[in-house]
Amino acid sequence: MNDATLNMLGIAGSLRAGSYNLGLLRAAAGLLPPAVGLDIITLGDIPPYDADVQGQGDPAPVEDLKRRIIMADVLLIATPEYNYSIPGVLKNAIDWASRPPKTCCLRRKPVGIMGASSGESGTIRGQLALRQVFVFTDSLVMAQPELRVPNAGQKFDGQGVLIDEELRERLRAYLAALVEWTRLVGSI
Amino acid sequence: MNDATLNMLGIAGSLRAGSYNLGLLRAAAGLLPPAVGLDIITLGDIPPYDADVQGQGDPAPVEDLKRRIIMADVLLIATPEYNYSIPGVLKNAIDWASRPPKTCCLRRKPVGIMGASSGESGTIRGQLALRQVFVFTDSLVMAQPELRVPNAGQKFDGQGVLIDEELRERLRAYLAALVEWTRLVGSI
Repeated sequence: MNDATLNMLGIAGSLRAGSYNLGLLRAAAGLLPPAVGLDIITLGDIPPYDADVQGQGDPAPVEDLKRRIIMADVLLIATPEYNYSIPGVLKNAIDWASRPPKTCCLRRKPVGIMGASSGESGTIRGQLALRQVFVFTDSLVMAQPELRVPNAGQKFDGQGVLIDEELRERLRAYLAALVEWTRLVGSI
Repeated sequence: MNDATLNMLGIAGSLRAGSYNLGLLRAAAGLLPPAVGLDIITLGDIPPYDADVQGQGDPAPVEDLKRRIIMADVLLIATPEYNYSIPGVLKNAIDWASRPPKTCCLRRKPVGIMGASSGESGTIRGQLALRQVFVFTDSLVMAQPELRVPNAGQKFDGQGVLIDEELRERLRAYLAALVEWTRLVGSI
């Protein structure tokens, strides 16, 4: 552990403007421990992964994604669950990030996974599916605590702003734990 | 069982022009039982799933995908495994297909899953991840036989044409079993 500034990259798994998961990331920005910065990225510009395209070099949005992953000390992924698994949009971005050039940008990268859903499961299955992916990429996903947000419609307003005080405190504790995890296993 | 014509929709999980999985589907077209037709679709035109976009109606490529799924008696998915899971491109298409309008187009639809990879696992994990998705959509995935193709570089030529006689016979048997499954549990 030390006091160096730590850069967190927040990745939203949903493209919806009022996304609960984007809302979680925005709320996180105000709940960070000292000396931690949060950059947030959405994935709407990432093209569908195609090895033929990749062979000619990464498209600009992919290059930008990889650059921001490389610069980050830790990834904070906030994602809904679609059909008991990872949103295709998020998986597609990981597929790009895992490929050369710069294939190494996920390797040994600390990662936190959280998720909000309007239903009652709170993205349980989606989070487990995502953990499986990060086994292959050799990323360092924090095991505990987990942050699952069921019934998100009651915890965010119509613009995706977090309005639930109990969740805000759980999120604050989650972020503190993720920073501790990053200082333990990461390069900072 | 009956003798009605059966329409199979082949869906390729990879966008690469020389894709082994697209090659599997093309080979399948020549190995079908009598009175079975195979239409093949690739997913390069499907936009990233965005609930805000969906709220304004399905984009044309999504409408086309859903129409072809509805018209099919059975889906035959041939997909690589990316990062121990489903390619984001394929999952994104399923995310669209599972959403309203026409949310029901995957429900009780017979499905066959197969996959080829250049490595030794032959898409084992990717296929299991895909089965998990089809639990939510209530699709009827054939359990056995499974078709996994490891070391695909030895079984296809540079243009993705199947050149392995043993695999051709396994594929023929797989297709016969899938047709039998469709006649057993499907609407035909």
